[in-house]
Amino acid sequence: MEKSYSGYLEPGYKPRDDLVALFYLQPGRRVSFNEAAQAVASESSIGTWTDISTLSNSLKRKLHARVFSLNRKSRLIEIAYPKELFEEGNIPQLLSSVAGNVFGMKEVRNLRLLDINFPNSYIKSFKGPKFGIQGVRKTLRVKKRPLLGSIVKPKLGLDEKQHAQVAFQAWAGGCDIVKDDENLSSLKFNNFEKRVKETLKMRRKAEQITGEKKAYMPNVTAPFNEMMRRARFVKKAGGRYAMADIVTVGWSALQDLRDADLGLLLHAHRAGHAAFTLNEKHGISMLMVAKLARLAGLDQIHVGAIVGKMQGRRQEVQAIGEEIEHSLIRSGKKQHILSEKWLHVKPMLAVCSGGLHPGKVPPLLEAMGNDIVVQMGGGIHGHPLGTMHGAIAARQSVDAAMKKIPLREYAEQHKDLQLALRKWQ
Amino acid sequence: MEKSYSGYLEPGYKPRDDLVALFYLQPGRRVSFNEAAQAVASESSIGTWTDISTLSNSLKRKLHARVFSLNRKSRLIEIAYPKELFEEGNIPQLLSSVAGNVFGMKEVRNLRLLDINFPNSYIKSFKGPKFGIQGVRKTLRVKKRPLLGSIVKPKLGLDEKQHAQVAFQAWAGGCDIVKDDENLSSLKFNNFEKRVKETLKMRRKAEQITGEKKAYMPNVTAPFNEMMRRARFVKKAGGRYAMADIVTVGWSALQDLRDADLGLLLHAHRAGHAAFTLNEKHGISMLMVAKLARLAGLDQIHVGAIVGKMQGRRQEVQAIGEEIEHSLIRSGKKQHILSEKWLHVKPMLAVCSGGLHPGKVPPLLEAMGNDIVVQMGGGIHGHPLGTMHGAIAARQSVDAAMKKIPLREYAEQHKDLQLALRKWQ
Repeated sequence: MEKSYSGYLEPGYKPRDDLVALFYLQPGRRVSFNEAAQAVASESSIGTWTDISTLSNSLKRKLHARVFSLNRKSRLIEIAYPKELFEEGNIPQLLSSVAGNVFGMKEVRNLRLLDINFPNSYIKSFKGPKFGIQGVRKTLRVKKRPLLGSIVKPKLGLDEKQHAQVAFQAWAGGCDIVKDDENLSSLKFNNFEKRVKETLKMRRKAEQITGEKKAYMPNVTAPFNEMMRRARFVKKAGGRYAMADIVTVGWSALQDLRDADLGLLLHAHRAGHAAFTLNEKHGISMLMVAKLARLAGLDQIHVGAIVGKMQGRRQEVQAIGEEIEHSLIRSGKKQHILSEKWLHVKPMLAVCSGGLHPGKVPPLLEAMGNDIVVQMGGGIHGHPLGTMHGAIAARQSVDAAMKKIPLREYAEQHKDLQLALRKWQ
Repeated sequence: MEKSYSGYLEPGYKPRDDLVALFYLQPGRRVSFNEAAQAVASESSIGTWTDISTLSNSLKRKLHARVFSLNRKSRLIEIAYPKELFEEGNIPQLLSSVAGNVFGMKEVRNLRLLDINFPNSYIKSFKGPKFGIQGVRKTLRVKKRPLLGSIVKPKLGLDEKQHAQVAFQAWAGGCDIVKDDENLSSLKFNNFEKRVKETLKMRRKAEQITGEKKAYMPNVTAPFNEMMRRARFVKKAGGRYAMADIVTVGWSALQDLRDADLGLLLHAHRAGHAAFTLNEKHGISMLMVAKLARLAGLDQIHVGAIVGKMQGRRQEVQAIGEEIEHSLIRSGKKQHILSEKWLHVKPMLAVCSGGLHPGKVPPLLEAMGNDIVVQMGGGIHGHPLGTMHGAIAARQSVDAAMKKIPLREYAEQHKDLQLALRKWQ
């Protein structure tokens, strides 16, 4: 059986215009590391499990992938793919190649796609985010500080008016952005159109009272045409944002949501990612997902909170933050990332969410910088005095961190923050 | 912290109109099994990590999910969700709820969504397959025997005419169906429209020569609008099928591909599924994916080959085969499946693929029955005399199995089969 996989190994090959993928690899039973690496390169480019009459040697030389770096100890391999193997501007086709059959081959016990370095021409075939970090800041007229976001909670159960009321409380207290939760679409007790109308009405009221710009992110997650109809409804109703659950919606629909140029900022919720990102030895890294979301042109994405309720190690979350916000990425062996030139593709805003509360803001900003959305659900609505005071406390924690004043000290003069710290620390 | 997750446990509760999900669960560090189970029920319905002012007790009573069965030994839990939590006809929203944040919670070390039992009203909100097994058999005029399929190989590299020639050889030798591979979309060396035209031309020629109906499954995997344009092109050019990579395309686009009622049979390739189905303790089961594909209305799907190059245990592949082909599913503790009434939703055809060759046909049919597509790529193109003889050998193996004649015996009078058996056994 080894024969069909031979010829995919070329140590020392220097990729030029290739697409390069970095994998973690554990071979299957009775398969050597070399063999397994070649099986991955073969199945994800032009090969199959046996030699075949229809594959000529000249064709193989021209189009085959090359394992050009492999390290038995770290179990990392790098594969270079001729760029001709990929259709520009088509993320599903890319994944069907390099993140397709390979995960289920018998030659492989565990396999994880850690990162891809894209050739310039491939990057150029995508528009990237329409707005990006600067677009978000301009829309909300917030120059330097981290943006403060909240999710209406409970995630399901409120009717349209209650939903709008909770959103209002959050904005009035100091949030910039309020969003729907990942499973709130259009439900019997909370209709999408009615919710958007009611909530945008409250947004305008909050803007008048506070003198600040506010934004609402309605969740348009649905089958494609319905998703687009809802997004257009949002725009027409005066909305500035739409959010979608990128993993459960899927890349095909997402690319066209972006390419429709609706004039809406696009927020990417990552619900479901951990089904394939959690195991450090198998699946696809969250960094890879975030990178694809930037390529597809979403403006912001959940990256983890480091200090919150969800999994996600500090180093990994920081690496993701840098990957989506910088224009030039240097490869880092420890973080398992490849270099990337993002060219025209705008920086995307990192959203830190999941189990945050005011007490966690300073260490979060220290780790992630100011170009993030600090997003709290329970950490605002769970405040002893309710949502508005929760939002006030959250905003106070952001202000304190920006002024480099320790929270305990700042809380002496700020009652709402004091109550929040008492509940959660 | 335990407080916020309390109230989600109700042993002995009898689900009626609920949606029921079956999970495998390993709790996170310092979390009890009970706590972890309730955390999953909370996060996937209406709860969050802390108690919040906006969730009233009456709301919680009405909409909360219930862990009604839990088994510490097998680590299986069943959760009943009020059907009001789900938007009918919206698969992404379903997954964002029950297969969303839960995989990444700190309370959970491993979590696998094994199956869902849908309430009747939910099933009714989907059209299901337009054609199903009977539609495929009618189109190809094959009443009882398994259908024989092939994939053009190498998966990438041939130009349009070479591609069409290989397809012709496979049809002429005895294949009913020939398909593109999962990463062949529209490439510089092989343009989609040109390939479809050339290949359908050869399909007509093969039909004339053999007197049989033949089908070609072009891969329309792409961003949504381009995917739909390509599918419509196929229909207009006289095609009968389109195939899509369901995992990398995503549910939002797939649902509308089906609901567009293009008059094309739809084939689901599952490339990428093993990123989240492989680990038996985490992610989502392949059975669940297949069930959603049936609900979404694809006509056939790759389920594994039991005896081939890909992972997939016998029992699991058989269970998937039954789940997509039967109208009434009885729950089975060993296979980790729940019961289901499929109502109006037509049976979907199982496609067995991945490392098959003629020698493996009899055990495959014994395990899976005759309502399958036996699909071989390398097992046909790798034949010593080339693709056409490979297809003849494959068809002979199907004929022998149908006549209950041992392959070795049948091969005495059938040279092509003999050569295949010599190469691969």
